[in-house]
Amino acid sequence: MLDFEFYNPTRIVFGKGTVAQLDRLVPADARVLVLFGGESARRTGTLDEVKSALGGRELREFGGIEPNPTYETLMRAVELIRSEKLDFLLAVGGGSVIDGTKFVAAAVRFDGDPWAILEGHGAGVTDALPFGSVLTLPATGSEMNSGAVITRKATHAKLAFMSPHVFPRFSILDPTKTYTLPPRQVANGVVDAFVHIIEQYLTYPVSAPVQDRFAEGLLQTLVEIGPKALAEAGNYEVRANLMWTATLALNGLIGAGVPQDWATHMIGHELTARHGIDHARTLAIVLPSLLRERREAKRAKLLQYAERVWHITQGTEDERIEAAIARTETFFNGMGIKTRLSDYGLDAAAIDGIVSQLEAHGMVALGEQEEITPQVSRRILEAAL
Amino acid sequence: MLDFEFYNPTRIVFGKGTVAQLDRLVPADARVLVLFGGESARRTGTLDEVKSALGGRELREFGGIEPNPTYETLMRAVELIRSEKLDFLLAVGGGSVIDGTKFVAAAVRFDGDPWAILEGHGAGVTDALPFGSVLTLPATGSEMNSGAVITRKATHAKLAFMSPHVFPRFSILDPTKTYTLPPRQVANGVVDAFVHIIEQYLTYPVSAPVQDRFAEGLLQTLVEIGPKALAEAGNYEVRANLMWTATLALNGLIGAGVPQDWATHMIGHELTARHGIDHARTLAIVLPSLLRERREAKRAKLLQYAERVWHITQGTEDERIEAAIARTETFFNGMGIKTRLSDYGLDAAAIDGIVSQLEAHGMVALGEQEEITPQVSRRILEAAL
Repeated sequence: MLDFEFYNPTRIVFGKGTVAQLDRLVPADARVLVLFGGESARRTGTLDEVKSALGGRELREFGGIEPNPTYETLMRAVELIRSEKLDFLLAVGGGSVIDGTKFVAAAVRFDGDPWAILEGHGAGVTDALPFGSVLTLPATGSEMNSGAVITRKATHAKLAFMSPHVFPRFSILDPTKTYTLPPRQVANGVVDAFVHIIEQYLTYPVSAPVQDRFAEGLLQTLVEIGPKALAEAGNYEVRANLMWTATLALNGLIGAGVPQDWATHMIGHELTARHGIDHARTLAIVLPSLLRERREAKRAKLLQYAERVWHITQGTEDERIEAAIARTETFFNGMGIKTRLSDYGLDAAAIDGIVSQLEAHGMVALGEQEEITPQVSRRILEAAL
Repeated sequence: MLDFEFYNPTRIVFGKGTVAQLDRLVPADARVLVLFGGESARRTGTLDEVKSALGGRELREFGGIEPNPTYETLMRAVELIRSEKLDFLLAVGGGSVIDGTKFVAAAVRFDGDPWAILEGHGAGVTDALPFGSVLTLPATGSEMNSGAVITRKATHAKLAFMSPHVFPRFSILDPTKTYTLPPRQVANGVVDAFVHIIEQYLTYPVSAPVQDRFAEGLLQTLVEIGPKALAEAGNYEVRANLMWTATLALNGLIGAGVPQDWATHMIGHELTARHGIDHARTLAIVLPSLLRERREAKRAKLLQYAERVWHITQGTEDERIEAAIARTETFFNGMGIKTRLSDYGLDAAAIDGIVSQLEAHGMVALGEQEEITPQVSRRILEAAL
């Protein structure tokens, strides 16, 4: 096992009707900014429920945080907080709203140009406003981690930052809040969580049987419940397990003490930033191709993945590996998510631009072995055409 | 899944040589009391290493915390802290030292007779001194939870308390610190962790596939590494995995959202309090007998346990259940731990006294269904003779 540090102080409040507990979780004298995305938070009644639970506190609203939250939008929230002297943030939404809220929380207390938070990947953050979340979309794990990804519209840059100062104080996970999600978002959430697990699992063995089994348990659960989550919008148990699985997929636990990859995410971010493809869909495009390209470096774990997640035990090693990658693609397709660049209208002409962006962002030695150079990224993208 | 709240702010610092990080983890101006058990902390050099890492800080020592830490001993630490105006505690040891330190941390700040902390199971605790731990014995999980068990010598009472105020601020897990443990303590630790997992897993299904798979992953890992931990004292990977498994066995994670049993522990505590049998050994005595007694209430999970942990798929349901319980006994025996009361010199005459103690401590409706009355506890003990 590799050395590690694990720290995660976010309080999870899980169950039906838990929004009412905001009254206990938010300080009674807080001046609260409620941040959300589109109008669905209002239309579904969740926003009213939140405001009712926070009754008696000074409240402001900030809507319109985009699916890939932008620096430009978020800086308007920073101004509002300063002008209204607000001191507690509440994110109501999915990963984009929570990620955006993390940036806002850090930017309000940041000395200097807040874009430096992203350029420094969070290193300069020494303080942040306290905040909590009401999760409505299981996918990114942002509700129980200290990372966020922010896009700058002006430059097509999509950058990540992490800081121990931006763990949510609490996150409310009420599975019934996911009942009204569009199928596209449910499918994206399942695939996003699946790939988060893969990025921390499918590397090389370091004698970490517990981390392996936890990851495999989460993957198996997603394989079982993913299709049901699409087919049965009001199935509480399915949505509850999806919500908790997606949270555990990226709260630091399964990645503690093991190598991590994240090349699929880095390449995928450029696809979103340049071509506007949904985050989860970029992962579904890149991952199978990346696994084939990195077959030798990942051989031992690919064989373990084949056997333990997909129960593939017949055939040569290479046949089992290929079967496991094919089953992964079939799983994504079954969730209604296509896995080729051409499915999204992109051809070979797009690849130069993506590779250039990777180079511009310093993404020149990706993956757990740091062997994915721009040339390797190019091969991965070409194989995904 | 059942509703739940999960909160665990303990920072884990894991790896070889991590004791040196105390300098970063303990405030520079802290006045520290270092608490430990027997002389092994001094003999192995760990105490010197701790003091060296804390160089420059005001330090006091408090040794002699017993394997089942007593109120009487711990109250002497409380007096020392008050008289010396100490403000940070560092537990160096296993579960008993850490449990004891939790009680001391709460008692120093408690208004009134500190025994009330235990009688109220922690409800009255509103504050505690900050503390960290350097773990030397993987077993109880105390290094990453907010519970403790304390014994009052005068009355043979062994009572538990929990409070969010007594999470360790940090715990240092250096697997090399376990190399010098006596085999008996290693074996006890494996069995203690194993039964912690069982208490949160072997109840009844509530559609919680992730919690089930996490628990099964921990159990399978203990089955694999337990014998190696005994046979290969200096095997870093084995000790590292044992340490992390024992921590995850009782940090709240696998118990979140599922029913919990704990009857084996409650009956076992009385065996320790009255007859001085090692905690883990009492669990090994009670558990197999309890599983047979509760076979119907636990049928579905016993069958799942048989298949997923022991790979037992042949035979009738009852045969598979009995085989899984027998394998569990064989595993304990293989760790050098006997599973019958008679192995510890107790016969039927001892049972009245144990059942009376259970009644005296209000343990009259134990287990996940609250169906283990004193009469059922008696049958469990009789079957374990």
